[in-house]
Amino acid sequence: MAEGGISMTTVADVLHYLETLAPRSMKMDWDNVGLLCGSKKQTVAKILVALDPFEGVCQEAAQWGADLLITHHPLIFQPTKSVTDETSIGRSIMCLIKNGISAVNAHTNLDQAPGGVNDVLANKLGLQDIAVIDPCGIDANGAEWGLLRCGSVTEQPLADFLTIVKESLGCEGLRYADGGKPVRKVAVGGGACAGGMLDAVRAGCDTFVTSDIKYNQFWDAYDLGLNLIDAGHFATENPVVAVLAEKIAAAFPEIEVKISENHHDCMKFY
Amino acid sequence: MAEGGISMTTVADVLHYLETLAPRSMKMDWDNVGLLCGSKKQTVAKILVALDPFEGVCQEAAQWGADLLITHHPLIFQPTKSVTDETSIGRSIMCLIKNGISAVNAHTNLDQAPGGVNDVLANKLGLQDIAVIDPCGIDANGAEWGLLRCGSVTEQPLADFLTIVKESLGCEGLRYADGGKPVRKVAVGGGACAGGMLDAVRAGCDTFVTSDIKYNQFWDAYDLGLNLIDAGHFATENPVVAVLAEKIAAAFPEIEVKISENHHDCMKFY
Amino acid sequence: MAEGGISMTTVADVLHYLETLAPRSMKMDWDNVGLLCGSKKQTVAKILVALDPFEGVCQEAAQWGADLLITHHPLIFQPTKSVTDETSIGRSIMCLIKNGISAVNAHTNLDQAPGGVNDVLANKLGLQDIAVIDPCGIDANGAEWGLLRCGSVTEQPLADFLTIVKESLGCEGLRYADGGKPVRKVAVGGGACAGGMLDAVRAGCDTFVTSDIKYNQFWDAYDLGLNLIDAGHFATENPVVAVLAEKIAAAFPEIEVKISENHHDCMKFY
Amino acid sequence: MAEGGISMTTVADVLHYLETLAPRSMKMDWDNVGLLCGSKKQTVAKILVALDPFEGVCQEAAQWGADLLITHHPLIFQPTKSVTDETSIGRSIMCLIKNGISAVNAHTNLDQAPGGVNDVLANKLGLQDIAVIDPCGIDANGAEWGLLRCGSVTEQPLADFLTIVKESLGCEGLRYADGGKPVRKVAVGGGACAGGMLDAVRAGCDTFVTSDIKYNQFWDAYDLGLNLIDAGHFATENPVVAVLAEKIAAAFPEIEVKISENHHDCMKFY
Amino acid sequence: MAEGGISMTTVADVLHYLETLAPRSMKMDWDNVGLLCGSKKQTVAKILVALDPFEGVCQEAAQWGADLLITHHPLIFQPTKSVTDETSIGRSIMCLIKNGISAVNAHTNLDQAPGGVNDVLANKLGLQDIAVIDPCGIDANGAEWGLLRCGSVTEQPLADFLTIVKESLGCEGLRYADGGKPVRKVAVGGGACAGGMLDAVRAGCDTFVTSDIKYNQFWDAYDLGLNLIDAGHFATENPVVAVLAEKIAAAFPEIEVKISENHHDCMKFY
Amino acid sequence: MAEGGISMTTVADVLHYLETLAPRSMKMDWDNVGLLCGSKKQTVAKILVALDPFEGVCQEAAQWGADLLITHHPLIFQPTKSVTDETSIGRSIMCLIKNGISAVNAHTNLDQAPGGVNDVLANKLGLQDIAVIDPCGIDANGAEWGLLRCGSVTEQPLADFLTIVKESLGCEGLRYADGGKPVRKVAVGGGACAGGMLDAVRAGCDTFVTSDIKYNQFWDAYDLGLNLIDAGHFATENPVVAVLAEKIAAAFPEIEVKISENHHDCMKFY
Repeated sequence: MAEGGISMTTVADVLHYLETLAPRSMKMDWDNVGLLCGSKKQTVAKILVALDPFEGVCQEAAQWGADLLITHHPLIFQPTKSVTDETSIGRSIMCLIKNGISAVNAHTNLDQAPGGVNDVLANKLGLQDIAVIDPCGIDANGAEWGLLRCGSVTEQPLADFLTIVKESLGCEGLRYADGGKPVRKVAVGGGACAGGMLDAVRAGCDTFVTSDIKYNQFWDAYDLGLNLIDAGHFATENPVVAVLAEKIAAAFPEIEVKISENHHDCMKFY
Repeated sequence: MAEGGISMTTVADVLHYLETLAPRSMKMDWDNVGLLCGSKKQTVAKILVALDPFEGVCQEAAQWGADLLITHHPLIFQPTKSVTDETSIGRSIMCLIKNGISAVNAHTNLDQAPGGVNDVLANKLGLQDIAVIDPCGIDANGAEWGLLRCGSVTEQPLADFLTIVKESLGCEGLRYADGGKPVRKVAVGGGACAGGMLDAVRAGCDTFVTSDIKYNQFWDAYDLGLNLIDAGHFATENPVVAVLAEKIAAAFPEIEVKISENHHDCMKFY
Repeated sequence: MAEGGISMTTVADVLHYLETLAPRSMKMDWDNVGLLCGSKKQTVAKILVALDPFEGVCQEAAQWGADLLITHHPLIFQPTKSVTDETSIGRSIMCLIKNGISAVNAHTNLDQAPGGVNDVLANKLGLQDIAVIDPCGIDANGAEWGLLRCGSVTEQPLADFLTIVKESLGCEGLRYADGGKPVRKVAVGGGACAGGMLDAVRAGCDTFVTSDIKYNQFWDAYDLGLNLIDAGHFATENPVVAVLAEKIAAAFPEIEVKISENHHDCMKFY
Repeated sequence: MAEGGISMTTVADVLHYLETLAPRSMKMDWDNVGLLCGSKKQTVAKILVALDPFEGVCQEAAQWGADLLITHHPLIFQPTKSVTDETSIGRSIMCLIKNGISAVNAHTNLDQAPGGVNDVLANKLGLQDIAVIDPCGIDANGAEWGLLRCGSVTEQPLADFLTIVKESLGCEGLRYADGGKPVRKVAVGGGACAGGMLDAVRAGCDTFVTSDIKYNQFWDAYDLGLNLIDAGHFATENPVVAVLAEKIAAAFPEIEVKISENHHDCMKFY
Repeated sequence: MAEGGISMTTVADVLHYLETLAPRSMKMDWDNVGLLCGSKKQTVAKILVALDPFEGVCQEAAQWGADLLITHHPLIFQPTKSVTDETSIGRSIMCLIKNGISAVNAHTNLDQAPGGVNDVLANKLGLQDIAVIDPCGIDANGAEWGLLRCGSVTEQPLADFLTIVKESLGCEGLRYADGGKPVRKVAVGGGACAGGMLDAVRAGCDTFVTSDIKYNQFWDAYDLGLNLIDAGHFATENPVVAVLAEKIAAAFPEIEVKISENHHDCMKFY
Repeated sequence: MAEGGISMTTVADVLHYLETLAPRSMKMDWDNVGLLCGSKKQTVAKILVALDPFEGVCQEAAQWGADLLITHHPLIFQPTKSVTDETSIGRSIMCLIKNGISAVNAHTNLDQAPGGVNDVLANKLGLQDIAVIDPCGIDANGAEWGLLRCGSVTEQPLADFLTIVKESLGCEGLRYADGGKPVRKVAVGGGACAGGMLDAVRAGCDTFVTSDIKYNQFWDAYDLGLNLIDAGHFATENPVVAVLAEKIAAAFPEIEVKISENHHDCMKFY
């Protein structure tokens, strides 16, 4: 980290630290994580952290003079055959490169890591005795990791819990199917995790908070007697951003770390 | 149709009539439509019509004494390896067979047919000069058919149009992305049709009403400057049920035709 | 098994017992076994046992008042997109459901289990020192399991052994290729197992009894110097039905167990 | 064909003639036909004709001093990675090459051609008004071609027709399922054609003669009410050999043409 | 093209012109052509033309102040999951974007177009009566297009023709297999086209000039009696660069067009 | 090996010995090795050894009266559907069979075996401290095996090493890319092994000798700073032939072993 007498933190140093928070080995096979744009050798004085590397976020990074953009979602998901201003991804990449900004992300590895997206979400909702529902392995500290979390709440009517979800995550609205049970044990999966519904039921949960839920999935939950709550992709995943920014700031006190101010959910309720 | 001196309408007769409304040749390759349970030879005195052949609907059909259940969605979508009470589909099939009820459906063929799901939806929203966006062919009457429709409205702010959608379809809530344009030309696709977004833009639409929209699709619309409205799968498709019931009743005056009273959307807003 | 003071055996109880005879873990990957129609919760007073769940067998079960039909072959093999009277499978399912009969089967798990289809067949032919040719594992009792069996007979001309096969299995006729050797060590595989010919030869067998043999397979055997005998699919597998019925009757003395009286091979010789 | 003053017929000449009887364009996609061993340039004085290029047939060709072996089935079907004496195919190829014999075949093109395997079979059974069931095209003479044939017989009980089949084809035995109908219209497909059962039914046939029939196919026929007769692969296809030999002898009077004397069916009845 | 009173040529204009030289419809299915980096809206004053968009070429473009880089090979061939300085492609893209340079290419469409890579190569070698060997269609001017060309030369020993190839293309060395024939009719395919060897033979050629030839391909040619010459990928394709640069300069007199000075073949002979 | 009082070595004996030099378990999945033509039972008095089983080599074997041809490359690589004089492979097989010659090969198993193709190549180039770059396992003698080898040379300019390669392998010419480094540590892979370039770099090599190198591979090496030398497929693999012949002669003193005199590279330089 030191070169001559002066310590110069590089993108490689940040990547190395992220590997301790969300090891690459925890990502899903199809995922794309790590350094997706720029250079490991780049020195870093300012880091912008955001959920997505969308065009507006890249512009904010450029205007603020960031050297590095850290996001949850990857800059490139489907491998790309061009980098032009005709696509949103192309415009993001061009903006980053023109402004000398590297881009790094932790996606499903951060979803699955202890202390990652889903632990933050479970905490945000006030769950107690949080555990991994679908354990995939044990991390370096002996903690189980996996995608979904569950935890208990004081028994309450679904309507009361809906209020908690809406307020704790700052949702403009919620969509849900009423499984006909009071809320005692809650599963959570930030982003589109409704496919894990049966795992939640097998774990004894009566309620599942996730997002991007489709019609047939609401009905599947209804048939299973599971309260299924769509709290929004942004609202369920964005809480990790503040936690991530805080950890990076603590690990690299010499770097200025900022959470994106412009990035909000484009999806509204009416 | 006649047996002795008395005319006895059969399931085959109803299927034959449905073929004129929504020909099998208009269905998508992967779809499953037509007689999915029971017998073409069954005589029909009472028909229940509903959007879905869910368990509650099958029970309603049984209690009312229906001979035939006509739905939009298929009773079996993924081919099944068993028919047991351990799955919702199995329970639906067992209920129908035990009560001597045949099940027939028109799915993507009814989406695409002139006068089908999407024409009904476009009319319900008050669109003018309704046309097919993505024509696939010409039907027996010389009318173009295809999945999506578009039409014009008096230019208005998005908020005004959101009110129209909510009221005309009876939605409890809407989700949307604001493309930053007033509403003049609207595309519609009942059910999960957000994949047709670029078709809507190419057709000159500023607004698209569909359902089951995912996070990245809202952002794609936002990037494209398209107003994208999720009015719900049930709310965008259910209007065809009344139209279908009415047509069948007119075609078969000897049959008692009823729309399901119990079937409502299980998805709620909060 | 007991509810209140009265013991009510259920389909679940019978499934649990079948799991001890032919564990699901012994089935082949592509197979469909277990409860394929009805309900585990159903109470059972009468069980019909047969090789196949064909339409005639289902009608016999209905007429006799069976609660459960147990077969070797599965009711549904290719996953189905409909349950109608236009197919034989559809008619079987409809007959079972209308008459409140559950259907359960053990197929390749029963072929491979110790004491299953192929051990019964080997015994029926009077083989000595019966062993598994192609062992796949060890069961809970320490016995090897696998598809094919072999055993020895007193050395004899092929013609003598053909007589034994015909009489012991009650075949109307046999088809065979003469490998040019006397019969000393015999491999057996009920149903269509000619694909295991090389396994039989490697195990030192001079003779192989199976069924559904094709032209090129007879010639392959002829080239290998293997006596290959087609004793019929029904005749080589049906012997397990009586053994299975007997075991179930012993395990559930409160249940009336009957072997299908109507089910015979539809294939005749001339 | 002429070289100096003496006419020397070559394998190429014979192939050219076979193309008029069974054009390569009539073969199925997966098939392997034409010159499979030897040389088009070879001169031909003696041709052996047989159903199969099995080892015994190749030896007979060598002993007789044949220059060319013409068969229905191909010498190589699955592409081969070696030519050794460890396989029957390897021994056949080695025998042919050592003895300077080329090998030529017409397989599915001869099945489908007018006057080919299935027309010969239909004639042999005495069918009247023979037609193609599943036409694939029109040949150079304006005749329809395709796989299966059908024709009528004087109405008779199935037992009577079984006698005709057995005697006209010289079968040692027959296997059949009784569809419960008298015989009036008969479909035929030499070799393993039971997969065409529904085509036969659609063509109005009550009876289907083919071979290599499996258990479930006999039951499918039984369910369909179709008399299904397995007359043997060899017995249903071998009749074409004599017809083919006769045509070749007529076309090439300078060549000695012989039908294999040793090749018989290795499959026996008991 | 005009904005206000001053004509400003854009990348879109150049793409439009390239479409007349090498229409996109002539490209192979798997290929990637057109605008692969930057913006169609960019104004263009200086164009660098080169065979490849390699790192050294991009740096040259940047140093010279180019607005647009036009190459034969695509900047991105395998779709990419990142744009970083860890790969050569990533460094090329980053160099282009940082320096505001768009990148455009015409690859297999330029190989196949009349007047493209292979016509230029055939002319360079002095072939007469040049024709397309493997025609794929007719262009807007009625000319045949396709991949390979052939043409005649005065009959000469192979050694003489090797001298012509080496000198006319400026090759440092050649590799070849001697087919044992004098040179009269020559096929050409710039780049790795040895797979078209049989097309060349069928077209009556005795000699084929291409590149990237493998051991077994040299032997295939030797067995076929075809003189096969590997003149190098760079040497056989680079001649089109000068022709392309000249045409663009003529079409856009207001633009400064330069051929890369630094780009040479990195492959040397010893 | 003995039959009566006289020892008669068979093809099986030679195969057994080859298995000790290059075990079948070391071959790659897609490869075809061992006895590809003839018979294990054949007695062997004369063996011809060559790199390839090409037509000229087979003719040489026939003229010399060989009983067995041992090569590196397989006689059949793509499984074949015919054996005729229309293909080079067909002519080779026919020549061997007519002359009673068996054919045996060791391909990727000989590439990977200790003492095989690549150890011989490394020795021929005078490398010191030869090691396996990409170890796949340990052989019966405890030696590592794998595809590529590396070893060190006295540090020297690339030009000096090119001279060593050319002279030690007897190459008519070389093709290379200059990676800009002196030669100290060299990787070798006989035949087309440029795909292992990154393995060579990871092993710390500055130079890689292989063959059949394509344009983009030379550039990849150039970008990596790796000296990449194409010394020819024949020249890099043929050295193993002499070593193999010597070992076989030593193992079977009763057999006459000869290296092909006619087989040379058909690829020339100009």
